[in-house]
Amino acid sequence: MRDYGSENLWEVTESALESIAIGAGILGTGGGGNPYIGQLRARQVIREKGPVAVLSPEELPDDARVVCVGGIGAPTVGIEKVRDYQSYHALRAIEDYTGEKATALISNEIGGSNSVEPLIPAAMTGLPVVDADGMGRAFPEFQMKTFFVYGVPCCPMAVADEKGNSVVIRDTINPQWAERLARSITVQMGCVACYAVAPMSAQQVRRTAVPNSLTLARNLGDAVKQARQEGRDPLSAILEVCPGKELFGGKVMDVDRRTAAGFARGTLGIDGLDSWAGQKMEIEFQNENLVARRDGEIVCIVPDLICAVGTDLGEPVTTEMMRYGLRVTILGFPAPALWTSDEGLAVAGPRAFGYDVDYVALTV
Amino acid sequence: MRDYGSENLWEVTESALESIAIGAGILGTGGGGNPYIGQLRARQVIREKGPVAVLSPEELPDDARVVCVGGIGAPTVGIEKVRDYQSYHALRAIEDYTGEKATALISNEIGGSNSVEPLIPAAMTGLPVVDADGMGRAFPEFQMKTFFVYGVPCCPMAVADEKGNSVVIRDTINPQWAERLARSITVQMGCVACYAVAPMSAQQVRRTAVPNSLTLARNLGDAVKQARQEGRDPLSAILEVCPGKELFGGKVMDVDRRTAAGFARGTLGIDGLDSWAGQKMEIEFQNENLVARRDGEIVCIVPDLICAVGTDLGEPVTTEMMRYGLRVTILGFPAPALWTSDEGLAVAGPRAFGYDVDYVALTV
Repeated sequence: MRDYGSENLWEVTESALESIAIGAGILGTGGGGNPYIGQLRARQVIREKGPVAVLSPEELPDDARVVCVGGIGAPTVGIEKVRDYQSYHALRAIEDYTGEKATALISNEIGGSNSVEPLIPAAMTGLPVVDADGMGRAFPEFQMKTFFVYGVPCCPMAVADEKGNSVVIRDTINPQWAERLARSITVQMGCVACYAVAPMSAQQVRRTAVPNSLTLARNLGDAVKQARQEGRDPLSAILEVCPGKELFGGKVMDVDRRTAAGFARGTLGIDGLDSWAGQKMEIEFQNENLVARRDGEIVCIVPDLICAVGTDLGEPVTTEMMRYGLRVTILGFPAPALWTSDEGLAVAGPRAFGYDVDYVALTV
Repeated sequence: MRDYGSENLWEVTESALESIAIGAGILGTGGGGNPYIGQLRARQVIREKGPVAVLSPEELPDDARVVCVGGIGAPTVGIEKVRDYQSYHALRAIEDYTGEKATALISNEIGGSNSVEPLIPAAMTGLPVVDADGMGRAFPEFQMKTFFVYGVPCCPMAVADEKGNSVVIRDTINPQWAERLARSITVQMGCVACYAVAPMSAQQVRRTAVPNSLTLARNLGDAVKQARQEGRDPLSAILEVCPGKELFGGKVMDVDRRTAAGFARGTLGIDGLDSWAGQKMEIEFQNENLVARRDGEIVCIVPDLICAVGTDLGEPVTTEMMRYGLRVTILGFPAPALWTSDEGLAVAGPRAFGYDVDYVALTV
């Protein structure tokens, strides 16, 4: 392994990747892109090029240039139109535009395939990834990153597709406009693309990123895998690693899903089983799960995490994989503190998604 | 006037601008943006900053860097949401991206307001404009420029709006993709934006541009103004300057127009008057007039020019100004030779617009 002067350095090997995909699938709150497809894509590159080094924000050299790369589009489309090396192309495009070379990569969201997206260009280029991300979960829109909430410029950013088209959003009046323009470009590119944002400094990453999230995802995945091997309940194992709460459990009865404006939007209906028998849960989603109502009453809402896992195996169930008959358990986790501030709620609280209700924090 | 070493140099003064707006309105085949609004916008800048020098392609210094600037969007929206200095912002964005300073500007199309769009940043910066353009008429889509048909790269190009957003389309697999991405960005920007393409060399301009078109537009406008003053028929004056043919004359009976996908699309119905009494003409348009049918039979089709002028005063009538009751005469002009080659017809012939007919050249 290259010497990064780090004492706590770990590497994303194929085995760690498998754990991250499980953990990030859970933290992805239904979105972030299909974690299994993301794992397959990253595994191929790691198998060819070797594992990827992970540095904590504190271990980054002070002159580091950290590029956030990620996928953008509708997860429903992403399972049919699998990405290839668009994030590498987006990285090269933003390096070319800014004239600065990245020295580390960071995930935009520790959810679904986006948690592992930086691993692909990292393995291709030999760069390390940062043990942090811009959400500590997944969110559907580009501006919903702690980086931008806390003052890192969101432009310039590059968007690239698999065909060879690339666009640089050079300057926008606010991050919402970057989302708006990037989304319309992505729709034209076939609803699946990747982006890379202009390099951040180490100081910016330390101040604005959600730390330790790659480690958390790996630990979650390790716990699920170990519980399965030992025949223990994976749901309890998840809640031991990441404090949260069971919100509901039952059988998926209805999925009303549509791909609209570059998003997967819809509503999910679950009938309770076992201790939840006789009750119903309804979850509204926009790529990610946004609000969970049990018998009509809100029990968890953004930015808190609403996560669906298979009741038996604890595997993450993303919105695009939801279908009639699945047995799922819905877990709730408190949002990272960066999201529950006034600044955070303004960008990713209930009202940012059109819900005319105040945020009430999940109690665990 | 600055010394450009040119013997045939002329300047776009306020008076010349008025003539150009009339002539380019006619050559605009119904599109290119409202010529009167374009004139008002350019007049304000020329009044403040002084006239703009016009250089023929041959007079360009060999090391010239010529930037094509233009408006993009739906003319129907452009009359309500008037552009301001977006073309200047787009120029600066592409200079910034390429690291090259423009030494002259060129119009993308000698039609409507796009014929005078480069005059605004030219007057603001003191740069000359080239007496040439990329169409010799107007066309609705970005790739439909002789520059790109004959091998000039269409990327990078910058798109800017009036709010402060700017995007660089960095690389596309073909010019149609540049159109597709630029159009969707423009729709987000409010259906009206401006663009600037990476600098061309003098040699590229000489080889691929339609020459002398600014002079032609000015001469057409001068002829119309003079005929009006002398009480002569302005339509005859137009046909004396630019060989063409009267295709129809009558009263507008029906305009079926919609703003769709960033274009003004529709159909125009005219009932014949005077020598055309008892006959009907139908014209289909996409920003510009594409095909003219007289009693069901095609009498003129792209890339030949189908131009509507007021029957009495010879003023250009663009598609967004068409309304019931207007007395119009429809003139046809042969397309520039650059468009009637196989390469030209592939990009802007009838089939490029979805008409399953061969191009038949207008005979004059």
